[in-house]
Amino acid sequence: MKVTPWEVEGDVDYNKLIKEFGINPMPKLPSVFNENILFKRKIVFAQRDFDRILSAIKNKKKFVMMTGLMPSGKFHLGHAILAQQMVFYQKLGAKIYIAAADLEAYNTRQKSLEELRKIAIEQYLKNYIAIGLNPKNCDFYFQSERSKEYKKSNAYYRLASNFSRYATFNEFKAVYGEISPGKMNASLLQASDMFHSQLPEFEGNPLPVLIPVGSDQDPHIRLARGIGSRYKDYKFMQLSSSYHIFLPGLKGGGKMSSSDESSFIAMDDSPKQVENKIKKYAFSGGRATLKEHKEKGGNPDVDVSYQYLSFFEENEIRLKKIHDNYKSGSLLTSELKQILIDKLNKFLKEHQERKEKADIDKFISKD
Amino acid sequence: MKVTPWEVEGDVDYNKLIKEFGINPMPKLPSVFNENILFKRKIVFAQRDFDRILSAIKNKKKFVMMTGLMPSGKFHLGHAILAQQMVFYQKLGAKIYIAAADLEAYNTRQKSLEELRKIAIEQYLKNYIAIGLNPKNCDFYFQSERSKEYKKSNAYYRLASNFSRYATFNEFKAVYGEISPGKMNASLLQASDMFHSQLPEFEGNPLPVLIPVGSDQDPHIRLARGIGSRYKDYKFMQLSSSYHIFLPGLKGGGKMSSSDESSFIAMDDSPKQVENKIKKYAFSGGRATLKEHKEKGGNPDVDVSYQYLSFFEENEIRLKKIHDNYKSGSLLTSELKQILIDKLNKFLKEHQERKEKADIDKFISKD
Repeated sequence: MKVTPWEVEGDVDYNKLIKEFGINPMPKLPSVFNENILFKRKIVFAQRDFDRILSAIKNKKKFVMMTGLMPSGKFHLGHAILAQQMVFYQKLGAKIYIAAADLEAYNTRQKSLEELRKIAIEQYLKNYIAIGLNPKNCDFYFQSERSKEYKKSNAYYRLASNFSRYATFNEFKAVYGEISPGKMNASLLQASDMFHSQLPEFEGNPLPVLIPVGSDQDPHIRLARGIGSRYKDYKFMQLSSSYHIFLPGLKGGGKMSSSDESSFIAMDDSPKQVENKIKKYAFSGGRATLKEHKEKGGNPDVDVSYQYLSFFEENEIRLKKIHDNYKSGSLLTSELKQILIDKLNKFLKEHQERKEKADIDKFISKD
Repeated sequence: MKVTPWEVEGDVDYNKLIKEFGINPMPKLPSVFNENILFKRKIVFAQRDFDRILSAIKNKKKFVMMTGLMPSGKFHLGHAILAQQMVFYQKLGAKIYIAAADLEAYNTRQKSLEELRKIAIEQYLKNYIAIGLNPKNCDFYFQSERSKEYKKSNAYYRLASNFSRYATFNEFKAVYGEISPGKMNASLLQASDMFHSQLPEFEGNPLPVLIPVGSDQDPHIRLARGIGSRYKDYKFMQLSSSYHIFLPGLKGGGKMSSSDESSFIAMDDSPKQVENKIKKYAFSGGRATLKEHKEKGGNPDVDVSYQYLSFFEENEIRLKKIHDNYKSGSLLTSELKQILIDKLNKFLKEHQERKEKADIDKFISKD
């Protein structure tokens, strides 16, 4: 097993991650969480300092959910897990901060800011909107242009610069291995992304900030927490974070990766593309022969199609039936795949229709 | 001889500096330059790409003179040499950009931004105004708050971030020796200070930018030139720079240093302080005894009081007379010092009166 922000390989043991990262399992959650598939099925499985988020929700106090997007490649099903959390927390009263990390991508992906901006809007923002993100109580911004209010912009960049006084090269190296000026700069901006909502120019006071991430992203959280805790000119409340498991890549193991077409289902894939990808790539827990499968049954726990259904099939009874039938051998791999294909294509058709109508103007005002 | 941005020691051989830095002597200058003591006496003695500045002046084209100030300690006579150039170029039509490097000072001097802001205004801006800086055609700013126009602020910080993609640690190390995240961040901001006036959000087009510096500051210029020339997303005109000799420290050698009270005359020193410092510290080129001095004469070339007069006594004939009389022995060290004391105290009295009246509001608008 290898889990870093740049590589996820092998079968991921989430209990091991909890120990390695020094994070905590989710506490007992209020019912509103357990009505959501992400929490009910422990897709969001661990946290740091999550208590203050629960307390803010309970007491109807202000809190922020902050996340970033790296504008590279296509928005796929793996990204949707985070977007669903945005929508969930927004409904619970969170102010949503979304950083389109175009400056970071500029430094590390060799693209122009114009290309990156386009990807951020077409591939990310529009999909967020289709998933249900509301412009109200949402601050979507580009790192390259934090705000149209000069006080906010100055405060955001000032914080990134000030943080550099409290950072050491060794801690960057611990996270990045090889560190370059471009990566270091991006990392300071990211720390400002995570903390700046608490400044007087933004939400006004130290307040709980939740950063939900995939479980490979914890090194970024640890780095920012360290810098933020040493910063002396403003008393930040420490970051809260939550960790979700990966939607595995189509071929099994690891996670969906934008850089590998055969690992993901993109949100704008056509029904035919979805069918072909699942049939061709989706790793199967079925037996070598039809006869053997019917006799001994399949293994849903390693079957990628079944795993995807556990993210997208909301109905518990239906999901359990699929599980049991596959395990007993009465459900064939081709049938299981077809259930997933139908499920995804229905979901994607509705999603794509909503995306067509996505109105970005309320999120990013034009000049 | 040692000349770095952090240390100037020994007798500075300016011809040697020209060779070491790969800079060039000043070219033949138009008469308006030679009417100015700074150019007439070769206090400004070397340059890079100065031809495009001369050409802009000749053709009445737009150009920028950019400089930065590190808000630390007292403004002294050594700083005045740079301020005099601001006023000179402003009168020649330059737009003046002045960066109060408070973010850089924050990272390296362990002070708060509030303290640094106060020093920048009280010790620097007010003295610039007293020396003759005009609010018209002048953009005085703090790194921590580039502008009250959001497009400008965003563009300035964006450039510092983008530059990081084109920088390497090795080039920072070549300039700084030990490099820390804080220094690196400051260095990227400094490169943005030097280049950003050329962006569309500021002066609008690539245009000549002159950065006059003390001859110890060339490593910063070289670093910024390197990064700017590799930057691909905007075609900057390469920086022009000029180099002035140091006003030596009172005790001779090196330069006036804010961190050594006995090395400098501050712009707000009282007449008594000036008298005491010159009498006590100013290194003398006189002989060991009065008798010997009268017989063999003094050495004006190593005499600090005489050197100061060569910066402040505008009248060529009077200066030559002092030189010759000191050399012949008819002018005693005590008399030479008294000439300087009177000269400086007259200059400082008028300066301090102007400083009293300095109106900063036209330079930095309040909210």
